[in-house]
Amino acid sequence: MKYSKNDIQEKIRKAVNDVRTQNPMAPSITNSVTINLVANAQLAVGGSAAMVYLPDEGEGMAEAAKSLYINAGTMIPVYGETLPRTARRLSKLSRPWVLDPVGIGLGGLRTELLTSMGTFRPGIIRGNASEIIALAGLWNAADVQESNVRGVDSMDSVEDARDAADALALFTGGAVAVSGADDYVTDGVNKVTAHGGSKFFPMITGAGCSLGGVMAIYACVAEPFIAALTAVNIYNIAGQRAEKACEGPGSFQVHFLDELYRSTPDDVAGSLFDMA
Amino acid sequence: MKYSKNDIQEKIRKAVNDVRTQNPMAPSITNSVTINLVANAQLAVGGSAAMVYLPDEGEGMAEAAKSLYINAGTMIPVYGETLPRTARRLSKLSRPWVLDPVGIGLGGLRTELLTSMGTFRPGIIRGNASEIIALAGLWNAADVQESNVRGVDSMDSVEDARDAADALALFTGGAVAVSGADDYVTDGVNKVTAHGGSKFFPMITGAGCSLGGVMAIYACVAEPFIAALTAVNIYNIAGQRAEKACEGPGSFQVHFLDELYRSTPDDVAGSLFDMA
Amino acid sequence: MKYSKNDIQEKIRKAVNDVRTQNPMAPSITNSVTINLVANAQLAVGGSAAMVYLPDEGEGMAEAAKSLYINAGTMIPVYGETLPRTARRLSKLSRPWVLDPVGIGLGGLRTELLTSMGTFRPGIIRGNASEIIALAGLWNAADVQESNVRGVDSMDSVEDARDAADALALFTGGAVAVSGADDYVTDGVNKVTAHGGSKFFPMITGAGCSLGGVMAIYACVAEPFIAALTAVNIYNIAGQRAEKACEGPGSFQVHFLDELYRSTPDDVAGSLFDMA
Repeated sequence: MKYSKNDIQEKIRKAVNDVRTQNPMAPSITNSVTINLVANAQLAVGGSAAMVYLPDEGEGMAEAAKSLYINAGTMIPVYGETLPRTARRLSKLSRPWVLDPVGIGLGGLRTELLTSMGTFRPGIIRGNASEIIALAGLWNAADVQESNVRGVDSMDSVEDARDAADALALFTGGAVAVSGADDYVTDGVNKVTAHGGSKFFPMITGAGCSLGGVMAIYACVAEPFIAALTAVNIYNIAGQRAEKACEGPGSFQVHFLDELYRSTPDDVAGSLFDMA
Repeated sequence: MKYSKNDIQEKIRKAVNDVRTQNPMAPSITNSVTINLVANAQLAVGGSAAMVYLPDEGEGMAEAAKSLYINAGTMIPVYGETLPRTARRLSKLSRPWVLDPVGIGLGGLRTELLTSMGTFRPGIIRGNASEIIALAGLWNAADVQESNVRGVDSMDSVEDARDAADALALFTGGAVAVSGADDYVTDGVNKVTAHGGSKFFPMITGAGCSLGGVMAIYACVAEPFIAALTAVNIYNIAGQRAEKACEGPGSFQVHFLDELYRSTPDDVAGSLFDMA
Repeated sequence: MKYSKNDIQEKIRKAVNDVRTQNPMAPSITNSVTINLVANAQLAVGGSAAMVYLPDEGEGMAEAAKSLYINAGTMIPVYGETLPRTARRLSKLSRPWVLDPVGIGLGGLRTELLTSMGTFRPGIIRGNASEIIALAGLWNAADVQESNVRGVDSMDSVEDARDAADALALFTGGAVAVSGADDYVTDGVNKVTAHGGSKFFPMITGAGCSLGGVMAIYACVAEPFIAALTAVNIYNIAGQRAEKACEGPGSFQVHFLDELYRSTPDDVAGSLFDMA
């Protein structure tokens, strides 16, 4: 269903507010580099965090929570069992879970697991441009060009990834968010470019991972497209404000968490975005 | 032995001071979400940190240090061997080690391991109300009501957990600390309610975990009840001061570590607590 | 080749500048306690970070990057395969990789792996005095006295470790950096003592680990001795400035990351060091 800008802003206000009043828990299976920032960002917007590694704990969390965040960042052997079992349970329960295909293309286990995730239809996929292009290729969701991943960095522009993102959204029936200087959020019908953020986001580790974790928090109270855009908007407005107050990447991260906490529903709904 | 308030305050002053002058090391086997904050809090109060995952390293650390912190937060397969071997060694050496039963009730391995920990008699148990009630039930230490754990959050009040805490203290012969808006610390004979802290503690990840790690630092120089209360008090006073100086959860954590470092023995002994 | 002080300063300026303009990626296999600070420090100086645990991912990263950081901090079972396979590949490709022998002496796997690392000739070895002395002993690189490691803390002085450091540098054909109140950097021919830093470095976890990670970033654009000294100098100048601005270890870490980002090539080249 295609929304008006007013519809979207009203839904964003409600999502921000509902998370603050309901304190929903969105568990994560995520990398060890940025796991602390993921949890702190989830808490700063009003949610609750819980991180697990083991297969039966992933399944238990899929049962207990309304959404869950899976980030492929730092693979360990037990994930070979944990990720498919958790994703299968999430899919069976129709949970709008969030997939972050960090590091796609590196290593045998990661490739095998990310390939298999396509059948479990994540409600939201979040990545940088190169990751989204690569995932669309891996799932044969689109006829895509070669992507250019380098470690965790994107070598493609958000503009380059729009078609892949739209195709992935139609493939999963959910939403896709491409992070970059501007951000693109799509469910295949509603297509939005969001502005703001900060030049310091790429200079701290975990801006993208924690954004994915916050999407899972909003996915506990809102549909995937709204959840993804609400998270993108609160990151854009909080990032802008943190950049003004900071003196470098260290103080940026501190102010950024403060601003996630301080942003009002009107701030987040009013953060700049254009509709296609 | 039942202490007067003056006795307790004198012992707290000594514990704060002894840690600053002796720089004791308390190793940890702890979760990956908050492992950095645990170490930084231990260092801020004047101790030294060292984290391990493997069975022989846990045993080696049990030999090398006067106390050790075990937190059940993020289970990985090797813990099936590491936790029992480390706890057995600690018990054999009569070390006053600290147990934090995070996530109790979730998953088969966690339940099996937390059940077995009862035989190794931790010197201090720290948890939120729901975790303490659940652990007392798991160990049959008390005739307790059903607890209400949700992920890592407590759904019970500290008041509700007093009987379970007293029973656990008598069961282990050590001390138990229940964290919440007010905190309850007991060794079954001395029973104290401590005040202070901050509304931001639940809005950062690891306030509870790092408190457990700091208890292990104080347990290197003081008996379990005093060690637990000293840690609770320095958290309450530093949390109060950090809240006044901060603008949100990001800056709260920064100021909190500063205030742990700046708190004097008199500050910590003078932090508000009532005796039952 | 023996350099003049002017030569060295010119090369440092170039290294600082080249990292800022080229944004080189130096992946890490590192401990979970300080993994976030390692990445954030690498980003703050202008590099890119990527952390892995699995054998084929370590090999893949050895191929993809110009340098790589291996820190023995928190051993997990898969490292038994990951560390030798990654180091062998690095050695085969003649990459100037960085080894940080944290916790040397603790545990069977760590001892076995650190012993085997000698054959793969790291371009840079970084450690505290006790770790450097212990590693020289383990590799029979020098006739060394008994070292005094306690967990992750050094019980020896930097002065005590000079001979071991020189011997290790001759053994590997690379550079060795010993961290302490003053720092010693040697390639066996050029021998430098660097001053500055902060009393707060030992009061935050990961000052040493992140220094090793930053050395790997500079090793992507400069020879090992220059890379090691550039990292030592930027830490010394940023540490000094952060200490002046901070109120304790929490705000020290924040200011420190800001100052890593703000330091100019001239600042880093001008940080105080003496040549032997």
